[in-house]
Amino acid sequence: MTIKVAIAGASGYAGGEILRLLLNHPAYLSGELEIGALTAASTVGTPVVELMPHLPQLAGRVIEPTDKETLAGHDVVFLGLPHGHSAEIARQLGPDVIVIDCAADFRLRDAAAWEKYYGSEHAGSWPYGIPEMPGHREQLQGTKRVAVPGCFPTGATLALWPAVKAGLIEPRVSVVSVTGVSGAGKKASVAMLGSETMGSLKAYNTAGKHRHTPEIAQNLGEFTDEEVVVSFTPVLAPLPRGILTTATADLKEGADAAAARAAYEEAYGDETFVYLLPEGIQPQTQNVVGSNMCHVQVEVDELAGKLLVTSAIDNLTKGTGGAAVQCMNLALGWEETAGLPQGGVAP
Amino acid sequence: MTIKVAIAGASGYAGGEILRLLLNHPAYLSGELEIGALTAASTVGTPVVELMPHLPQLAGRVIEPTDKETLAGHDVVFLGLPHGHSAEIARQLGPDVIVIDCAADFRLRDAAAWEKYYGSEHAGSWPYGIPEMPGHREQLQGTKRVAVPGCFPTGATLALWPAVKAGLIEPRVSVVSVTGVSGAGKKASVAMLGSETMGSLKAYNTAGKHRHTPEIAQNLGEFTDEEVVVSFTPVLAPLPRGILTTATADLKEGADAAAARAAYEEAYGDETFVYLLPEGIQPQTQNVVGSNMCHVQVEVDELAGKLLVTSAIDNLTKGTGGAAVQCMNLALGWEETAGLPQGGVAP
Amino acid sequence: MTIKVAIAGASGYAGGEILRLLLNHPAYLSGELEIGALTAASTVGTPVVELMPHLPQLAGRVIEPTDKETLAGHDVVFLGLPHGHSAEIARQLGPDVIVIDCAADFRLRDAAAWEKYYGSEHAGSWPYGIPEMPGHREQLQGTKRVAVPGCFPTGATLALWPAVKAGLIEPRVSVVSVTGVSGAGKKASVAMLGSETMGSLKAYNTAGKHRHTPEIAQNLGEFTDEEVVVSFTPVLAPLPRGILTTATADLKEGADAAAARAAYEEAYGDETFVYLLPEGIQPQTQNVVGSNMCHVQVEVDELAGKLLVTSAIDNLTKGTGGAAVQCMNLALGWEETAGLPQGGVAP
Amino acid sequence: MTIKVAIAGASGYAGGEILRLLLNHPAYLSGELEIGALTAASTVGTPVVELMPHLPQLAGRVIEPTDKETLAGHDVVFLGLPHGHSAEIARQLGPDVIVIDCAADFRLRDAAAWEKYYGSEHAGSWPYGIPEMPGHREQLQGTKRVAVPGCFPTGATLALWPAVKAGLIEPRVSVVSVTGVSGAGKKASVAMLGSETMGSLKAYNTAGKHRHTPEIAQNLGEFTDEEVVVSFTPVLAPLPRGILTTATADLKEGADAAAARAAYEEAYGDETFVYLLPEGIQPQTQNVVGSNMCHVQVEVDELAGKLLVTSAIDNLTKGTGGAAVQCMNLALGWEETAGLPQGGVAP
Repeated sequence: MTIKVAIAGASGYAGGEILRLLLNHPAYLSGELEIGALTAASTVGTPVVELMPHLPQLAGRVIEPTDKETLAGHDVVFLGLPHGHSAEIARQLGPDVIVIDCAADFRLRDAAAWEKYYGSEHAGSWPYGIPEMPGHREQLQGTKRVAVPGCFPTGATLALWPAVKAGLIEPRVSVVSVTGVSGAGKKASVAMLGSETMGSLKAYNTAGKHRHTPEIAQNLGEFTDEEVVVSFTPVLAPLPRGILTTATADLKEGADAAAARAAYEEAYGDETFVYLLPEGIQPQTQNVVGSNMCHVQVEVDELAGKLLVTSAIDNLTKGTGGAAVQCMNLALGWEETAGLPQGGVAP
Repeated sequence: MTIKVAIAGASGYAGGEILRLLLNHPAYLSGELEIGALTAASTVGTPVVELMPHLPQLAGRVIEPTDKETLAGHDVVFLGLPHGHSAEIARQLGPDVIVIDCAADFRLRDAAAWEKYYGSEHAGSWPYGIPEMPGHREQLQGTKRVAVPGCFPTGATLALWPAVKAGLIEPRVSVVSVTGVSGAGKKASVAMLGSETMGSLKAYNTAGKHRHTPEIAQNLGEFTDEEVVVSFTPVLAPLPRGILTTATADLKEGADAAAARAAYEEAYGDETFVYLLPEGIQPQTQNVVGSNMCHVQVEVDELAGKLLVTSAIDNLTKGTGGAAVQCMNLALGWEETAGLPQGGVAP
Repeated sequence: MTIKVAIAGASGYAGGEILRLLLNHPAYLSGELEIGALTAASTVGTPVVELMPHLPQLAGRVIEPTDKETLAGHDVVFLGLPHGHSAEIARQLGPDVIVIDCAADFRLRDAAAWEKYYGSEHAGSWPYGIPEMPGHREQLQGTKRVAVPGCFPTGATLALWPAVKAGLIEPRVSVVSVTGVSGAGKKASVAMLGSETMGSLKAYNTAGKHRHTPEIAQNLGEFTDEEVVVSFTPVLAPLPRGILTTATADLKEGADAAAARAAYEEAYGDETFVYLLPEGIQPQTQNVVGSNMCHVQVEVDELAGKLLVTSAIDNLTKGTGGAAVQCMNLALGWEETAGLPQGGVAP
Repeated sequence: MTIKVAIAGASGYAGGEILRLLLNHPAYLSGELEIGALTAASTVGTPVVELMPHLPQLAGRVIEPTDKETLAGHDVVFLGLPHGHSAEIARQLGPDVIVIDCAADFRLRDAAAWEKYYGSEHAGSWPYGIPEMPGHREQLQGTKRVAVPGCFPTGATLALWPAVKAGLIEPRVSVVSVTGVSGAGKKASVAMLGSETMGSLKAYNTAGKHRHTPEIAQNLGEFTDEEVVVSFTPVLAPLPRGILTTATADLKEGADAAAARAAYEEAYGDETFVYLLPEGIQPQTQNVVGSNMCHVQVEVDELAGKLLVTSAIDNLTKGTGGAAVQCMNLALGWEETAGLPQGGVAP
């Protein structure tokens, strides 16, 4: 049987990354996976290679409209739409289609948090797509619905949950995540021009304003009964892809470097896509470019009495499109790692 | 039978790129290809992941010395050594081992040109690794020796040979190639510091001084009896990977845009790794990052009476490591395209 | 007497650069020059520091409308408007006001060339603002009208006129200019996003399509009776500021390296803002960032029988805003070099 | 009387930046300041423009040796040497010469902290060159000795001292500073190659290992009797110049946004080189490139109960060379702001 896949909102960066990965997926190369409709709104009728010349394999394909008819007849539908459209489309598709949502709509379980940060009615929550969080892989296997995590929450959660779970830190965490510019998406704006972003650094959506803040708190909250408090500061840096997360929190009594190392080794020793670096080597975003990896390092700052965890991901791969394909593999009962590169495009 | 592969000079960027590709090669994933010795000089004994943290699959591997004993017992040996060492190693390995040389040693057929540009004795010439040049694919199939082309000659040759062969242009060509910094290799130098290269552009090895000049001339000379003259100007730009080549030459009597388009369609219509872009779209290096593609566009500048051809490659993939793997596939009688991505890591 | 200066179209990059320079101009610091109205269209009423936080000296200033009343009462008016508006504003201002136009409107003397490239009626021509071209400084001294040159023509003309004037080359020139992204201005577009321009290179407006092509030809035509033919290829590179121009042309009979060096030494020996680099050193754009300099190198490529001239400018300084202030100084009868840095902000 | 200035260690980035500023200093332009010896070690005899082509005004100058004879006869000597050489040179120069040390040697007052972080004997401490810290301007006026601050401590101290002084925060601060690559200096290394730093982000000298950690603690300790604890994480980002500092700390009881804003307005209302941005605008490093400014924003994160302060400086200007010239002005009794640009080279 051939699995037929559609992408709604294919013309953005998330859609492009999913396509890049699917076109190298062994199931695509063997004919078990077929790429069906590629849909969008303002670009309907445009040849796909004009929008994505980096994927010449799609020569001859044209963008179709995002509507019920076009999306019908697919086994898997990825959604790369602006926030707020996923519930309606999922309902149209029916319960038997695997829907993998790259928007935020179904990430938060707390309706109040959703309404505070997104300003609209809460649509509910779906299985959350970080298989490396204890308990989540099982929910994703065979699921028909997936909420792909935000890019910052992916980097921050993989950095911190083992420490929270092991009781190493007070759950009041300070997270500063430095990100490349592709996280802002493919829409025209003066602030995101090359002229305004090359050769410059700035923080934005600071002091609790970023929508990924409650998502980080929700994730860490699964591992402690204490209240989780997140200070989150995103910083924009001049590179296309990559998020470098630095996370600090006060050490709990008795926690030390050996316990920290042990907790992370236990958490990630069997994970393909999280690499706990040898001691003394810091994560570097170029090492994960185009790969589905999260590189992690953990240290104790004895002077400050804090744990420091750093992580690196590619925001478009492990941070979005790679996670989406990893979850598709799980939902279909395929090899979880199929089609997902471990090697980064460095330098 | 398992093919066992070694890389001599594995710690540089060419070696790293070959490894990145091999680790995703279907023959590696199925066990038909085994990665054997990874050798170098000054880094012997170093864990490979300290030198290449972007390849966590190599955890546990250690750099070995580049010597006869270590390289014995392999079916394929890639050489990523400084110029001048290849002949000696090839002799030690014997005639039955496939030797794929990423250095310049066996690229030039003209001993005088070699001596003028490299200042040492000419070692000879091997089958030249651009399968897309007419006649070369046949030489590479089943060969035991491959000279992997220089990165600039790859971009310039793929841009120009169809025009020379079709008699569209006078074979006096002006080539300006703008390159990312990884072409300079992984060796410490003040001129190649991030501080000196970010936010800056400069030409270098200008006015015929660059060693790739005679290689471009040799390649184009295969398609004309007239004397080929190459004006070559490399320009260093602030990006890690990518070469954007602009090539101009005077149009011959009667040549026009339609003839030019036809010549390139004929040249590349059946080629997997050269993509003649739709009219009106210029090659952009981000579209080929990490891929084995060369994107090409051809135009007539009627005002100046010239043909303009532009091409984009990733200097480390199609420009080095990807070409090396493509040639390995041909030498082994495997599918030429196996393990080589067409999709670029964009944006 | 205090000179009062206005900038119409102050919110773009040209306006910002003129302001940056004026705020450090000795006449401003001593009170002889006053910064009057800063006008624009869509941003009227916006605090200037919101648009230009890099100029905190302008705290308290607000953008005013670009109209006759607001611009009245100034001695000098810089125009940083889109093409096509300058003639009307200049007429409103009257003949006694110094009008310095950063748009293209009055650069071309040939009405046919204007209409072909700009598609509207030709407005005429004004004294052309490259004082380093023989004959131009005299026209600019005391003038009331200045056409500030295009950024590419500045780099290309300073690279080539001495060779044309000295009869060293055939006046069929190939110019490839690699530019930073600020040349595209401060307007929202997908193609100029950081994501699309960082980590990438592409040619654009190729094969004679770029509007600066006839301007280069016009400039070089002042130095020869032969027909000038320009092949011009602009390439976009990932840096904010800077243009690196490479220019080649066939050497005339008898021209050699010594004659070339002598011609450039004679041309630029007394010029403050053109620096003929010592032999063996190539221009590098970081060395002119923020300065009003053009760095030049000239070489003979004996293999190709060509002259190669390379030049580096900051497209916003010597390429626009610095040239504008230099011309203001000449128009006012002030020291030509006042307020214009020679030192670049490197690295 | 003409002031004669020498720079020992002129060939590095700090020396180059001091020279760039001095060459535009009004005292230099008027002849009151003369640039004397430019000394270094390995580059003795090299023409200065070969090392610093961005400063063509120095054509004809040659690097001299850093010795007593060469440095004799100057009124001001800037030291841009590796740590550990300043005491000996200062002794040779005698007590009447103004010595401005860009190395760390005389920054720390605590001998134990010095020995822990620098591993050598403590040389003592000199007046510390952040005039905007209360009490320091007075110490710098007329001084003969200046310890120029580290670049990270400049950004972090200007971000935090007003909050500590006003009792707004617990003095346990978390500082994450993202820096451009020029902070690593002009010495060859693989880790600082363009290939390794462009397109990448990484933390380094983490968890209390960075030598600037005790310097930040010392500075903040001047404003509280409580123990100051600093968690400091530097992150390397792909740009030449700029430091973006994010600093967080728990709010003290009763502290709120209004009090925070008031404290920073009071601290910086009269300062030329610290610009408290209007509310809602974040500091961006491109806005301070080449300028002596520090841009600051202060916010309360009510969710996390923390104060967030962000600051932007150019690490080579306000972070090193500009601070050095500002201190020279104070030491000489000149206008403090002379020769120091407020406007940044943006974009």
